[in-house]
Amino acid sequence: MVPNQGELLSKIYSPADLKKLKDTDLPRLCEEIRQLIIEVTSTNPGHLGASLGVVELSVAIHYVFNTPYDKLIWDVGHQAYAHKILTGRKDIFHLNRMLEGISGFPKMTESEYDAFGVGHSSTSISAALGMAIASQLLNDNKRQHIAVIGDGSMTSGQAFEAINNAGVSKANLLVILNDNGIAIDKNVGAFKEYLTDITTSRFYNRLKDKVWNLMGGNTRYGKNSRAVVRQIGNAVKHTLLKKSNLFEAYNFRYFGPVDGHDVVHLTKLLSDMKNITGPKLLHVITTKGKGFTVAEKNQTKFHAPGIFNPDTGEIIEDKKCKTLPPKYQIVFGKTIIELAEQNPKIVGITPAMLSGCSLNLMMAKMPARVFDVGIAEQHSVTFSAGLATRGMVPFCNIYSSFMQRAYDQVIHDVALQNLNVIFCLDRGGIVGEDGATHHGVYDLAYLRCVPNLTIASPLNEVELRNLMYTAQLENMGPFAIRYPRGRGVSSDWKKPFEEIKIGTGQVIREGNDLAIISIGHIGNYAIEACRQLADLGIDTAHYDMRFLKPIDAKLLHTICSKFKNVITIEDGTIVGGLGSAVVEFINDNNYNTTVKRLGVPDSFIEQGTVAELHRICGCDVEGIVGIAKEIHTQK
Amino acid sequence: MVPNQGELLSKIYSPADLKKLKDTDLPRLCEEIRQLIIEVTSTNPGHLGASLGVVELSVAIHYVFNTPYDKLIWDVGHQAYAHKILTGRKDIFHLNRMLEGISGFPKMTESEYDAFGVGHSSTSISAALGMAIASQLLNDNKRQHIAVIGDGSMTSGQAFEAINNAGVSKANLLVILNDNGIAIDKNVGAFKEYLTDITTSRFYNRLKDKVWNLMGGNTRYGKNSRAVVRQIGNAVKHTLLKKSNLFEAYNFRYFGPVDGHDVVHLTKLLSDMKNITGPKLLHVITTKGKGFTVAEKNQTKFHAPGIFNPDTGEIIEDKKCKTLPPKYQIVFGKTIIELAEQNPKIVGITPAMLSGCSLNLMMAKMPARVFDVGIAEQHSVTFSAGLATRGMVPFCNIYSSFMQRAYDQVIHDVALQNLNVIFCLDRGGIVGEDGATHHGVYDLAYLRCVPNLTIASPLNEVELRNLMYTAQLENMGPFAIRYPRGRGVSSDWKKPFEEIKIGTGQVIREGNDLAIISIGHIGNYAIEACRQLADLGIDTAHYDMRFLKPIDAKLLHTICSKFKNVITIEDGTIVGGLGSAVVEFINDNNYNTTVKRLGVPDSFIEQGTVAELHRICGCDVEGIVGIAKEIHTQK
Repeated sequence: MVPNQGELLSKIYSPADLKKLKDTDLPRLCEEIRQLIIEVTSTNPGHLGASLGVVELSVAIHYVFNTPYDKLIWDVGHQAYAHKILTGRKDIFHLNRMLEGISGFPKMTESEYDAFGVGHSSTSISAALGMAIASQLLNDNKRQHIAVIGDGSMTSGQAFEAINNAGVSKANLLVILNDNGIAIDKNVGAFKEYLTDITTSRFYNRLKDKVWNLMGGNTRYGKNSRAVVRQIGNAVKHTLLKKSNLFEAYNFRYFGPVDGHDVVHLTKLLSDMKNITGPKLLHVITTKGKGFTVAEKNQTKFHAPGIFNPDTGEIIEDKKCKTLPPKYQIVFGKTIIELAEQNPKIVGITPAMLSGCSLNLMMAKMPARVFDVGIAEQHSVTFSAGLATRGMVPFCNIYSSFMQRAYDQVIHDVALQNLNVIFCLDRGGIVGEDGATHHGVYDLAYLRCVPNLTIASPLNEVELRNLMYTAQLENMGPFAIRYPRGRGVSSDWKKPFEEIKIGTGQVIREGNDLAIISIGHIGNYAIEACRQLADLGIDTAHYDMRFLKPIDAKLLHTICSKFKNVITIEDGTIVGGLGSAVVEFINDNNYNTTVKRLGVPDSFIEQGTVAELHRICGCDVEGIVGIAKEIHTQK
Repeated sequence: MVPNQGELLSKIYSPADLKKLKDTDLPRLCEEIRQLIIEVTSTNPGHLGASLGVVELSVAIHYVFNTPYDKLIWDVGHQAYAHKILTGRKDIFHLNRMLEGISGFPKMTESEYDAFGVGHSSTSISAALGMAIASQLLNDNKRQHIAVIGDGSMTSGQAFEAINNAGVSKANLLVILNDNGIAIDKNVGAFKEYLTDITTSRFYNRLKDKVWNLMGGNTRYGKNSRAVVRQIGNAVKHTLLKKSNLFEAYNFRYFGPVDGHDVVHLTKLLSDMKNITGPKLLHVITTKGKGFTVAEKNQTKFHAPGIFNPDTGEIIEDKKCKTLPPKYQIVFGKTIIELAEQNPKIVGITPAMLSGCSLNLMMAKMPARVFDVGIAEQHSVTFSAGLATRGMVPFCNIYSSFMQRAYDQVIHDVALQNLNVIFCLDRGGIVGEDGATHHGVYDLAYLRCVPNLTIASPLNEVELRNLMYTAQLENMGPFAIRYPRGRGVSSDWKKPFEEIKIGTGQVIREGNDLAIISIGHIGNYAIEACRQLADLGIDTAHYDMRFLKPIDAKLLHTICSKFKNVITIEDGTIVGGLGSAVVEFINDNNYNTTVKRLGVPDSFIEQGTVAELHRICGCDVEGIVGIAKEIHTQK
């Protein structure tokens, strides 16, 4: 349902309407936008905190700049709700993150105002620089190119690669550093401390002017003082002043820090900055969750709070949840503590997904052994490799789709050196509402070709625990454990640890008509499908491979000797994953078995619930049953 | 043959022997090491320039530190020849980069002095930090951890991710910044300019002391001047001074810049620095090619010069070369100029492989349209994506094994948005002497699972030209063209452009007994194998797929209808590439054809010549003929 809109907002269908407002109306408009965001996300969960933090910035940018002619790129993009509301999508904003609704992130095919599709962090400066250079080459000198990037995203290497490149260009590039001191969890690292330093220093803001004035000689201290000034003069001018700021060291003109919630001041500043050529950076201080007290106070919780009371901010727990099985991330988070209590060599590493992967639990118990390295997937993997060379046993937890960022490090630093690093790939498979940028559906394929790597995926919580237990045993080599977003299947998961023999699958159900081979949690669909098929008189065997690599050849020989028809199912692309491995095995061993590969087809899948998307992919219970019936009929 | 060694060097078999020398002997030892490196690499080509530049640094580090107890990591590692010579490998150094010889890079399994295996850039700080943190956790507080990293490698994001993380640790980490102003080509970007600034500023070096002295009040300018100093005092102390240096902004203590060829001074400095706790950086200025005049003067050429006269430095061109077919990189470099002359939207992008991929040719002709973005694969891809959104046609050239660094950007920024970016993956397949870190053997597998991406690989130079021509036609979407290191097959390659229909292979040779399906240059082995098999009476068909994706289904139907036995051959892993695609096709279409997949097996392949390594992999002419005979016998 389209929610009520405030008086000003109700008239705004595009930035052109926004520009008709007086600047003194803008604070009120910001409040109306804020209310809409709170109201909509209170019933249709989304990324609340970050979007509340940049309402004023969003309004100011669209008020001052000529979007979509001017190119505006939101880094990560989960903060772009006000942007979406201002650019023609307010009346469908309640369909945010829904199947056939709008994406939770900017997306080029959704709106001409979304200059670049985003989702993963730290791409905005690279993309904006590319656009700005294109404008130069096309003699399109009026066009502005703006990247809005958070202080968290700035810790990722790609942002600095882009700044290094931009600093020697004459590109018309404006980077707006949205500094709220937090990513999902508190931002970490030296860069964050640096930002805090320059923000909190009473002297910093006007220091330059002050020193320049002193240099100028209009000082009341007379000629001796001018001698002092001369003494350090050139050096200060050429190095200290010019390079006193990290961004200026990279040849960016630096402005700020300024209050990111003073929308009128922001419009004035941005108007001034339009006329400054070359790369420049505006440092804006904002509060994540701004304007919604509970969200300001609990920033990590309100990053994406789920359903809540829009008046009180009380988070409304689904009552069913108490009786539901735990999330896999919780099983990971509690299990690593148990293991770390037994094995002093175990450490936990996360690139800025501390609470997302539940390493915050271990951080609370044994802080010295958990490392949140910032949004730095590449570093996190090589850092883990370094730890492993010294005999430590690092569990490096990275969401599957973000692991794409560290692919080279997995191959080059870990697998090639055969180091005992355990990768825990959370959010493996279809993740649901976050959509195409976040589905972790390539990992099985892109990891399978890496030598030395053991790749496993648990059917349920107990298997996850046992795989984690197994992986930390001595000299297991590089080991990837991949599990999905969301809940497992049983509340009774805290069983004693059991070692799982590497490369062994298991029989879930014997059968005679055809066989299903699954890997990972999606195998639970197969369990249900087998039941339904049995009711239909189709006697279906089910095997859980557990390991994609090394694959259980013995089990596959048994299966292929018995069955003419096999269905493989995996929560990932059907190009190169489990299905391909089984087909290769059949070919290499001259079996006559035919495989129907179920999983994610070779195309990008948009947002929706996990169930909806699995259905679309044809790999839910219904999909399996349908295929099995078809095969059985043809036989 | 083991070359003659100088008097001092001949007695050194380990750093313990080195430590017996007086420091005044060290300059002479450096000369002897330098001579050995020049002599050996003059006949057995290697990475000359970088290694000559760090002879003094290598000697100083091993003289001062307690390796291998202290951990020493060479970033990239092509500069580690002196290190290898000093750590027990001088008598096998002439086997550098040879099959069953020693690796051209540090490698953990080769020596306990190689604390971390390297090859790709910018991993050293991450790894050293991991080791240093492990030492902390293990209460091993005496151990030193040293990363030696070039100014080129510092432009890659991972290095800054590591610095950001290290800056908030108390880890005992020493980063030695080896600043020679050059990667393979001249180093680029704002960071490089920054280093030049702080190095060349007359005032910089002693500026801190000077200002501190002024602050202290021991100034001859009297009390008025002290009032001035107070005026800016706190601010300067807390922000300007502390943060005047980019590295200090990241909480590193910064020392330097110092002369990296004054070995005695280096030993003194390093001795002092041993006692400073926490993260620290020593900025060392070196000359690439130091001590070998021609190498100092032609730094790009002498990065890896091939065979040369050790006395004169004259590079000895293999006389055969003149009559040999061109290198693929030259075909790329010349063809992109031809295309760019016709299509003004074409631009060339390289992450620091300007001469390596031959974009230097286009840079010379149309400098405004070529972008060397530094060692920044991630940025290069998203930057290309940004250019493409504005209608430009970027050819983004990245070596296959380095493309692993930009995997997420290929998926998330290019393929998902279906942008017209053309990836040219040079050095695809086995690269030879650079070994395991550099073989580009995973690309076909890791790219095949990416939706929207066209993946092609040319059989020869003419196909490369035509694929490049085809890729730049309108709305081709994301397009990857992958070709190998080394030479093509014909000097007569400059044919008029012809469009190749997307997803079409071609018949190279008809036959009746069995079929070979190839992709890329390695198909030339198949051509020769077919000839030899014909002589043996085995009538072999040969099909060149050209496109891995979309794969030519029509051609595969023809092949599978006719043949019971097929051999696939690709210069890449057999897990997930062409062979897997063919097997999937056969399965999905219910053919009875059996496939023998030739290519790189599922293990890491070390250094050797390309021919040697293909032989080891069983995918050279002999390998194909052997398999074909076997299949033919069994039939």
